[in-house]
Amino acid sequence: MALIVQKYGGTSVGSAERIKTVAQRVADTHEAGNDVVVVVSAMGQGTDDLIALASDVTPNPYPREMDMLLTAGERISMALCAMAIHDQGVPAMSLTGSQAGILTTSVHGSAEIMDIRAHRVREGLDDGKVVIVAGFQGVDPVAKEITTLGRGGSDATAVALAAALGADVCEIFTDVDGVFTADPRMVDDARKLDEVSYEEMLELAGAGAGVLMARSVEFGRRYKIPIHVRSSFHDGEGTWVKEETMEEAIIRGVAHDSSEAKVTVHGVPDKPGVAADIFEPLAEAGVNVDMIVQNVSIAGVTDISFTVPKASIDRARQIAERLASEIGAVGVDIDTNIAKVSLVGAGMKSELGIASQMFRVLSDRQINIEMISTSPIRISCVVRGTDVEAAVRSLHDGFQPPSSPEEE
Amino acid sequence: MALIVQKYGGTSVGSAERIKTVAQRVADTHEAGNDVVVVVSAMGQGTDDLIALASDVTPNPYPREMDMLLTAGERISMALCAMAIHDQGVPAMSLTGSQAGILTTSVHGSAEIMDIRAHRVREGLDDGKVVIVAGFQGVDPVAKEITTLGRGGSDATAVALAAALGADVCEIFTDVDGVFTADPRMVDDARKLDEVSYEEMLELAGAGAGVLMARSVEFGRRYKIPIHVRSSFHDGEGTWVKEETMEEAIIRGVAHDSSEAKVTVHGVPDKPGVAADIFEPLAEAGVNVDMIVQNVSIAGVTDISFTVPKASIDRARQIAERLASEIGAVGVDIDTNIAKVSLVGAGMKSELGIASQMFRVLSDRQINIEMISTSPIRISCVVRGTDVEAAVRSLHDGFQPPSSPEEE
Repeated sequence: MALIVQKYGGTSVGSAERIKTVAQRVADTHEAGNDVVVVVSAMGQGTDDLIALASDVTPNPYPREMDMLLTAGERISMALCAMAIHDQGVPAMSLTGSQAGILTTSVHGSAEIMDIRAHRVREGLDDGKVVIVAGFQGVDPVAKEITTLGRGGSDATAVALAAALGADVCEIFTDVDGVFTADPRMVDDARKLDEVSYEEMLELAGAGAGVLMARSVEFGRRYKIPIHVRSSFHDGEGTWVKEETMEEAIIRGVAHDSSEAKVTVHGVPDKPGVAADIFEPLAEAGVNVDMIVQNVSIAGVTDISFTVPKASIDRARQIAERLASEIGAVGVDIDTNIAKVSLVGAGMKSELGIASQMFRVLSDRQINIEMISTSPIRISCVVRGTDVEAAVRSLHDGFQPPSSPEEE
Repeated sequence: MALIVQKYGGTSVGSAERIKTVAQRVADTHEAGNDVVVVVSAMGQGTDDLIALASDVTPNPYPREMDMLLTAGERISMALCAMAIHDQGVPAMSLTGSQAGILTTSVHGSAEIMDIRAHRVREGLDDGKVVIVAGFQGVDPVAKEITTLGRGGSDATAVALAAALGADVCEIFTDVDGVFTADPRMVDDARKLDEVSYEEMLELAGAGAGVLMARSVEFGRRYKIPIHVRSSFHDGEGTWVKEETMEEAIIRGVAHDSSEAKVTVHGVPDKPGVAADIFEPLAEAGVNVDMIVQNVSIAGVTDISFTVPKASIDRARQIAERLASEIGAVGVDIDTNIAKVSLVGAGMKSELGIASQMFRVLSDRQINIEMISTSPIRISCVVRGTDVEAAVRSLHDGFQPPSSPEEE
């Protein structure tokens, strides 16, 4: 008998029919002798519908009230799931994030989980119930205000709850079969990975693999909770995210990200403190800077380029232009037609020459590299946005990420 | 400066545009120097939509989860209202029933308000904020479970909150202009009443006037909170429900109710305890019995008729048929084609002959009376359902409820 946390995303609970399918799976898991905690997102487009309602009311929704509004989404799906599980003859009880003891910071719209006081969840489990918890939401225990966790918040709820409860596994049910060696919509022979390490998954998530957000992987890594990413449409095994993998692959997969834009500040006087002058105000404005490249200084001036989410580009431009004039730079360029391609693999640490091989594969396809950034287990290149498919395909071909051992 | 509780129903907050209109009115009331507490229902058909969702998932929604589900409706409208009021430059804060301290019994779906611990509402008011409270919902403080108050629950929230806060007035905004001398859809010259006493309003509500439920009137009566029923579409005065009216009318209005059905148990042996045998099981099954008539006993047997909501007729029939066979009655008849017409007026107490006049008016129109029940300030007759419009019109004509003094 195990304690299993199962997380179902918006697509998995997107209709009454799908909720019944989820209920059947939860009931089966429970009847197999497991304790089950279920974390749900809002139904299908539920959150987007609520956001649209708010923007019909005001162009600037008050953040506290936006959280109050959005948390209605999971409330609806969790109650419907609890009813459906009851209908399967399994006692069930839904809890809001606040009731489940998900304690967060006070930042409305992007709160962080600080602690979980899951005694109501444990009581429910002790009573033999399946406990359904609203994902994506919590409560700031000081002000007693309802908060939401921002993008990927339901996954974070699930993994953090699994950690707090000491669960044996956190299962993330999604509309894909698992984590792939590349985006299957782009690469025909992309293969599902049977396993991937936390570190690799963190890098893949940061490099654009949307299936699991970095924050939930980080919870798994810190508390050593195995995460099983799997399909909500069939019973097949998905991808296990865990500490050690059977085989340390040199290249686990190819990831890409077209959601960023590049800002270049030209003609920056090359003196101490100038980078801090640029990036401190961006951080204060909540702009999430990803890659940063500074050219070699020529005649005392340099260029600094960085990438930010396209959604933040207007704020980033304003700040960069103001700073450029303050620090005496020549000007600011914005380029939204870029994409990032990355190779990720834990074996890269002990293997030389991967970066140069990567640059060769891209240059063989006439793909120009505009920025480069590396970690011990990842190499990322920024290329033209129009080159991204060719880049991903040629890298997947060129490096042939191994099938998982079980499949060989 | 006054403390005003304003309640807006589903129609009043039925769209983004209407929510903005509500926000404007609330802001105006606040800027006129008043403290304002706003109670809102779910948007338009929001509650019905959620009920439909639940019935897509299961024919028997678990009551606890049904309450969890339905309370999402007011959560959405209260957050949107708070945003819209903010947009008017007025600080505002929404609170769920639980956050507002609406403590109820534990009966899911039809909980009763037991107490209100409104310190968060008071804190908000002390901070100069408009406080928006979700209607229709509360929390069972023992089990910490979310409850709903059942039909008319948002009005009850508003009046009970007004009582707890010692408000100067509770304004119920609705899609009609106030309380009328008869249903204006049925009687062309029905007139809006400027005022009506709590007792009269209780009788009118019980007799089918849908504008205000008896439970909220009872809160107003007990704590002497003036209730102002008024239109959400214009600024005109509505109807004041209060302790003393300017003029004690003999007939304040004509009400009707087509929502009930009649059950007749034939050939009941006329012995002590037989009525209790019938009505105890109905009460235990939660069937709300309205009128009861027992005929004069002939040869030791009698007929007992009673009315129940049509929604409960299947349960009532089952119970009646089981009991009929247990107590040796002849049989059970169900009649769903009935309606109740009532005359209500506090002046009736000191006026003789109203009942006989009423019977005469109906018989002049060839309308047969099937059951009669009276209170000191009300006379109700059950007639054929198809006769209800003629009955209401002839009684309104025959008794001419007075215009309110201000209008004369």
